[in-house]
Amino acid sequence: MSATVNETSVASAVDLSDPVQVRRAIRVGIFKGFTNGVAPGYMQGNLVIVPEKHAANFERYCRSNPRPCPLLGISEPGNPRIPALAEDMDLRTDIGEYRIFRNGSAIGTATDIRELWQSDFVAFVLGCSFSFEQELMKAGIPLRHLIEGNVSPMYVTNIDTAAAGEFSGKLVVSMRGLRRQDVTRAVEITSRFPKFHGAPIHVGTPQTIGVDLEQPYGGHGLTKLHDDELPAFWACGATAQVALEQAQPRIAITHSRAHMVVTDLKSETFA
Amino acid sequence: MSATVNETSVASAVDLSDPVQVRRAIRVGIFKGFTNGVAPGYMQGNLVIVPEKHAANFERYCRSNPRPCPLLGISEPGNPRIPALAEDMDLRTDIGEYRIFRNGSAIGTATDIRELWQSDFVAFVLGCSFSFEQELMKAGIPLRHLIEGNVSPMYVTNIDTAAAGEFSGKLVVSMRGLRRQDVTRAVEITSRFPKFHGAPIHVGTPQTIGVDLEQPYGGHGLTKLHDDELPAFWACGATAQVALEQAQPRIAITHSRAHMVVTDLKSETFA
Repeated sequence: MSATVNETSVASAVDLSDPVQVRRAIRVGIFKGFTNGVAPGYMQGNLVIVPEKHAANFERYCRSNPRPCPLLGISEPGNPRIPALAEDMDLRTDIGEYRIFRNGSAIGTATDIRELWQSDFVAFVLGCSFSFEQELMKAGIPLRHLIEGNVSPMYVTNIDTAAAGEFSGKLVVSMRGLRRQDVTRAVEITSRFPKFHGAPIHVGTPQTIGVDLEQPYGGHGLTKLHDDELPAFWACGATAQVALEQAQPRIAITHSRAHMVVTDLKSETFA
Repeated sequence: MSATVNETSVASAVDLSDPVQVRRAIRVGIFKGFTNGVAPGYMQGNLVIVPEKHAANFERYCRSNPRPCPLLGISEPGNPRIPALAEDMDLRTDIGEYRIFRNGSAIGTATDIRELWQSDFVAFVLGCSFSFEQELMKAGIPLRHLIEGNVSPMYVTNIDTAAAGEFSGKLVVSMRGLRRQDVTRAVEITSRFPKFHGAPIHVGTPQTIGVDLEQPYGGHGLTKLHDDELPAFWACGATAQVALEQAQPRIAITHSRAHMVVTDLKSETFA
């Protein structure tokens, strides 16, 4: 792929249903969008990178809170690759947007973290609800945010997670509007995927869990529901980002917003 | 001021050296910039709004950490005005950008918070380093970030503040590049203004306080220093925003980035 090829022609040559091509397009800066519409059927994940001194407690935090933080993979210290998830994947370049935390506060974003990478970094990949959205659609449950080309919003709830060492904090959820007649079936289907957050933790009445639908975490996603739709809330991997605010590691890096890790593994094999 | 008047002609009629006119211009959406260059000589402040149930502990947090959080004013519960700071000021509309926290996490920004205002809200205004920048310039200490039309960057340090109830967290600082020959004089001058954070908490070697100059909190400000400049770090009111991440109130609102509260009080009267 020559640097002189113009972006339009390259983009048109990218098959966004192929996770290998999606990662390559992100790596070279051609694909900059949210990942919920690409590589359908392939598992996506949340990224959390912490210095090794925090890795053991973060792993314990994930195992203590498997609903929001289901572990899909952990790198060797200093190694930005987890070959079991995707042979060619480089976690320093293959995510569309990264979020940088310094001493526990999110200070900004980046599109490449090769300059920030440290020899003591350990990368964690946690399950993501995007992996079950296609399963719901296949089952005939229309997800209006997908049909409208949008993304599911996230919210910080008033529910405490289980602390592990320096890691603690409120549960973050993602929300999808479901037609009332689809709620039961959506619960059944998603409960088959514990690695992708499982069944909703709550349906209806956002205020019960401390949520205002108009105020999503990060400010993106479809928040206006139709009268015949109920909000359904799933535990969300962004919970780990809130836990970083509490743990206050000197540096940590996560994916940002809906720019997820795209793996080569088929979602259906995790049912 | 008619809604049909075009913005250019209105803006040219605004005297940005007058704090009353600055607030009015922010209120009607004409002035959208950072406030470090406007109303020179008038005191500016950080804004922190919390529900009344958190107000006593937040006040105690400020009094326990007067360097980053010097108290300039506190509103009555439910009242978005602090007349002692500026007779006409409405804290729901007169700040250029607000930052919204839900359950302790910053979820986004707003330019008007009338819809979010609650009858139990208590507003705090804390001193800000913009108030001493003009004093340094008047004393013949050139602040290159001001000369270049830029703003001072903020950093989250590795220094713990004193906890008060649910409020705790790392100290945030603002940084200015000083010529070596100006350091002593800058310390002398700023130490006369304890309500504006006083003297620097550290000069030189950013890594000593856990700071990487290239990674400012919020991602804005002049971070590239010349060879003859030393970085000087002052305690910063954004420390209160980090403390909100720890306290996790259901809702809280602060100013955002360098969009400060502009008061009618003369800075020099606080020396």
